[in-house]
Amino acid sequence: MAMVEVTIVPLGTGTSSISKYVAQAAQVLQAEEDIKYELTAMGTIIEGDLDQLLALVRKMHEAVFATGAMRVVTTIKIDDRRDKTSSMSSKIESLKRELGH
Amino acid sequence: MAMVEVTIVPLGTGTSSISKYVAQAAQVLQAEEDIKYELTAMGTIIEGDLDQLLALVRKMHEAVFATGAMRVVTTIKIDDRRDKTSSMSSKIESLKRELGH
Amino acid sequence: MAMVEVTIVPLGTGTSSISKYVAQAAQVLQAEEDIKYELTAMGTIIEGDLDQLLALVRKMHEAVFATGAMRVVTTIKIDDRRDKTSSMSSKIESLKRELGH
Amino acid sequence: MAMVEVTIVPLGTGTSSISKYVAQAAQVLQAEEDIKYELTAMGTIIEGDLDQLLALVRKMHEAVFATGAMRVVTTIKIDDRRDKTSSMSSKIESLKRELGH
Repeated sequence: MAMVEVTIVPLGTGTSSISKYVAQAAQVLQAEEDIKYELTAMGTIIEGDLDQLLALVRKMHEAVFATGAMRVVTTIKIDDRRDKTSSMSSKIESLKRELGH
Repeated sequence: MAMVEVTIVPLGTGTSSISKYVAQAAQVLQAEEDIKYELTAMGTIIEGDLDQLLALVRKMHEAVFATGAMRVVTTIKIDDRRDKTSSMSSKIESLKRELGH
Repeated sequence: MAMVEVTIVPLGTGTSSISKYVAQAAQVLQAEEDIKYELTAMGTIIEGDLDQLLALVRKMHEAVFATGAMRVVTTIKIDDRRDKTSSMSSKIESLKRELGH
Repeated sequence: MAMVEVTIVPLGTGTSSISKYVAQAAQVLQAEEDIKYELTAMGTIIEGDLDQLLALVRKMHEAVFATGAMRVVTTIKIDDRRDKTSSMSSKIESLKRELGH
């Protein structure tokens, strides 16, 4: 299973309206069942099958154009491990254990 | 006020021990007062004065070498706006409002 | 037309052998005709149709696992504009013109 | 010695004028002696002492605000290895050797 972080930045649309565009992208995820995701202040983290995740990111990217942007910079960070199952919650727990929480 | 997301990846250290190194970096933040941060499954988000944030990231990066890594790839994403005050919580709230939550 | 920058980092494989893994990924591009790409010291830049680019990046990512890595962190930055045609060379030229070169 | 890749995206400024802002950032590097850098279609790669590099990136980021942007998203990727000396040219050469060029 893979984890993907997506950050979508529409260019040429004013500084304040970014959240409107990002919301269009997030709605792609809301429409999906069986998809686990988390909105952070800097992006969206999604976990699942890598091919499914990339197809979703592709839709999210397109949703921002559909809202009127003419140029979009999208950053995708994939963390993919095949030696064991990983998840958003197990990664955070593992980090907190190291921190002695 | 700026927001910074940091992702630190030590190379050549085995796949499983990453959290040990990342924990060393996070401890730099625990030692600070007056710093607001959030650990996510893909990185750490910190908000505050940009110069202070970059100095902290510099320390976090160094902490991973101090733990024994010989090569470290650190990614820093800065979101800095000067037209109005922004924060991790206001960004998430603004996004959720757009989503109709 | 879109432009994509890909950075692939295999984890748990030693600090020195990174180029061996990255070469496997680059070979995916060498096998393609009609694809324009550039190797930089920090990643690979590819230009073309976005769907085709993402399919290639997916293959590059998989090629690193096929070489033996058990965990791979891949970063993809997409710059996609629909208001006019852009290319690697036109972007650099436009920047150099601004710089008075 | 470290290598840093910087990508600077001004928000709310129109899609076409990006190169004007990026040029302001690049001029910070032109003014420096003893700094090796390379402009790519997706960012700027600089090599040198890490503290010096981060100070330059800080100046580049500020230069974009000085040009009139009100919000700037800057991404910095640091590749820092302490086991041996690395450089932009040695990284590319090492990759090309693997590719059999």
